[in-house]
Amino acid sequence: MQSTVYLIGAGPGASDLITVRGARILESADIVFYDALIDHEMLFWCKRSKLVPVGKRCGAHSSSQHFINKAIVDAARKYSVVVRLKGGDPLVFGRAAEEISALENAGINYEVVPGITAALAASAQLKQPPTVRGLSRTFTLTTIAGTTNYDDHPTRIYYMGRNQLTEITEQLLKDGYPLDTPVCLMESVTLPAEKRFVSTLGEISRESSSNYYESDKPTIILVGEVYRNLLLDKPSDQFEEVNIKSKIA
Amino acid sequence: MQSTVYLIGAGPGASDLITVRGARILESADIVFYDALIDHEMLFWCKRSKLVPVGKRCGAHSSSQHFINKAIVDAARKYSVVVRLKGGDPLVFGRAAEEISALENAGINYEVVPGITAALAASAQLKQPPTVRGLSRTFTLTTIAGTTNYDDHPTRIYYMGRNQLTEITEQLLKDGYPLDTPVCLMESVTLPAEKRFVSTLGEISRESSSNYYESDKPTIILVGEVYRNLLLDKPSDQFEEVNIKSKIA
Repeated sequence: MQSTVYLIGAGPGASDLITVRGARILESADIVFYDALIDHEMLFWCKRSKLVPVGKRCGAHSSSQHFINKAIVDAARKYSVVVRLKGGDPLVFGRAAEEISALENAGINYEVVPGITAALAASAQLKQPPTVRGLSRTFTLTTIAGTTNYDDHPTRIYYMGRNQLTEITEQLLKDGYPLDTPVCLMESVTLPAEKRFVSTLGEISRESSSNYYESDKPTIILVGEVYRNLLLDKPSDQFEEVNIKSKIA
Repeated sequence: MQSTVYLIGAGPGASDLITVRGARILESADIVFYDALIDHEMLFWCKRSKLVPVGKRCGAHSSSQHFINKAIVDAARKYSVVVRLKGGDPLVFGRAAEEISALENAGINYEVVPGITAALAASAQLKQPPTVRGLSRTFTLTTIAGTTNYDDHPTRIYYMGRNQLTEITEQLLKDGYPLDTPVCLMESVTLPAEKRFVSTLGEISRESSSNYYESDKPTIILVGEVYRNLLLDKPSDQFEEVNIKSKIA
């Protein structure tokens, strides 16, 4: 039996922000290993497949990466169409390298289907491009408070930065980002529960980061001069509830 | 009449790499303004809409941005569902800020539907994440040969870098990237005509960049230590033809 494992990006959350290719493969899959972080509506695409929750969720019990690798390889010996469904894009900060390595070592055929990554889903929700001609022509996606050169107002977008907000803020100020640089925190991007909070590096550096988080949902942090408009529109100091139900569903 | 303009990302090229939301909106659109860069297969989603080619293509005649802005605003006064279909993600290096500004000034309702950006489509085709634990935890998307800090082997992915390859290479070497840093050039990502060329900063800096380009297709340039495996697999000095037809269509 010729089987294929598909590493598919589910996108940011909303079930219709998966690619057409990803949705079609899910419809025909025999077995789907899905991240705990994925919204359950996404699984409606799986018409006939066995569903196996795996993966990590902040603070909760999770399958180890080694177990996931082995489960996928075992499934490929039993089923024809095996899916590993990962939140966002499968190759962005998702430890896909370890799954790919396990599949290659086992000689199993596999494909990668890209997904909308949180940074760009957040940009779409904010209606704000991460770069703007004449202001910033560069944006960086990262998980760490690393150094950068503040020569072109570079935009920085942090994944999994919830517990690192203090270090991130301090490093950016040290790198030369001004105190009034806009910062936008977003959680549950594209889901009905989406929330956003707009502030500045200066404001955030003066307060405990726990003030800005009300839940354990995935959070993305967007920093840069390009977000100035959001700061001007800022409606309140609270998380703003945004209903993002698709107009055409 | 309540009309909405949708800025939709078509994704990298293959017609099934648009999001489900994007495809559904195209099916119901009254009029679609599409980039000349978009593969024509993508337009098969438009079942009943008027199709208007606009936008820029390297070297060819193109509509000016001002004309596009005006055409979209005028269409919103006449049609209920208006689509501006842009290659890749609508907010990544696509001058969407100017279209958004025109829509806001005219008081027109609009939404942004994200798309798969070329950097991540290229990563999926290469089966290589842009970051790898223990090696690089940061990647930057840009259009310019700007400076960077070579402290974490940061990956850099250049859009529209075709004519800047010499400047890009020189700047990276000056920033401390080693001569043997892998470089992957890809054009027509995810289309049947997809081609890739793998080399190193040192090799590229010694030759004219025109040696690496055979056409006027959109090209993406991926630079970083994470692409070392591609260099080891390098089959020849020629562009490698890669057939990427979806297995499940």
